[in-house]
Amino acid sequence: MTTLDQLIRNLSRLPGIGRKSAARIAYFLLKTDTRFTKDLAREIGELQDKIVECSICGNYTEVDPCEICTDPRRDKSVICVVEQSQDVQTIESTREYDGLFHVLTGVISPIDGIGPDDLTIGKLMKRIWETDISELIIATNPTVEGDATAMYLVRMLGDSPVKISRLASGLPVGGDLEYADRLTLARSIKGRLPLR
Amino acid sequence: MTTLDQLIRNLSRLPGIGRKSAARIAYFLLKTDTRFTKDLAREIGELQDKIVECSICGNYTEVDPCEICTDPRRDKSVICVVEQSQDVQTIESTREYDGLFHVLTGVISPIDGIGPDDLTIGKLMKRIWETDISELIIATNPTVEGDATAMYLVRMLGDSPVKISRLASGLPVGGDLEYADRLTLARSIKGRLPLR
Repeated sequence: MTTLDQLIRNLSRLPGIGRKSAARIAYFLLKTDTRFTKDLAREIGELQDKIVECSICGNYTEVDPCEICTDPRRDKSVICVVEQSQDVQTIESTREYDGLFHVLTGVISPIDGIGPDDLTIGKLMKRIWETDISELIIATNPTVEGDATAMYLVRMLGDSPVKISRLASGLPVGGDLEYADRLTLARSIKGRLPLR
Repeated sequence: MTTLDQLIRNLSRLPGIGRKSAARIAYFLLKTDTRFTKDLAREIGELQDKIVECSICGNYTEVDPCEICTDPRRDKSVICVVEQSQDVQTIESTREYDGLFHVLTGVISPIDGIGPDDLTIGKLMKRIWETDISELIIATNPTVEGDATAMYLVRMLGDSPVKISRLASGLPVGGDLEYADRLTLARSIKGRLPLR
């Protein structure tokens, strides 16, 4: 197998990249500016050495604890619970939230053999008991597993005074009622907000 | 800018990869088996050092002249003219063709300022005069520029006895060779039409 075939095969193992896209990328890499390919190669090679999981929240970071956990301007009384590290970036990009995060590294999913002990729920509970957390925002995905995980966390917290909320589910902004699926629409009716 | 942001930015410069796909790939690379990422990084980094253009036909190769030009089983009297190196692979994958290739490195396109002298047409003519070529199959894309380039080659060959043909239509007009399915492409090689 040639160098090029080998590269195309490996590129096509990346998520969302089929064989034709992989070939297109490989030929692009052949023709493009050498500095770019060398940089890209170095970045991919160094990625896993440079980036670790924050020992507090589990977010990917180059310094441990991560910049969010150590930022003095952030509200240390709120934790937003997400499934995975990239969700932290997605929520950060809204600039609507200035509290802390906790990455569960997944959701409870019996069908995939993932139970509460496979996630960082124990660590989250420890954070809640040991630090001064007053609110938990559960931002798992609005799926059966995400909902089940949210309910599990609510049960775990029993009658502690910690406020718990879940991200609102409903119509996407700029969307059209006509194209909303039934479940989403049902949820947006249930969660309707008073205008006055 | 963090290592991760930098990688996402560079990945999104690859063809067909938007920002979200780039992020998805970056997080995949973070989590996946280290040997895979190291291999991929090495392959990308070494690509341009290992692969050169064949001095005869212009196809990408690790040995010069390329394996097609030096293969004794191939028919040395036919040259298939393609726009770019990846088209060689695409045609090879049909297993319908056993002659030689010539990579033009583009097509005549006045609007992009590309004239005949910017392509390897001179080199092609030299190959035709100096070796025993009896047929030329023009496999430029079925676009205005591809057709114009084919007609230009026909004119260049004047009244030489070389047979000239063009891949049969069946390929969608305005389309791109790179995205044709194998069967369509195989059929268009079999049904190629003489231009004179």
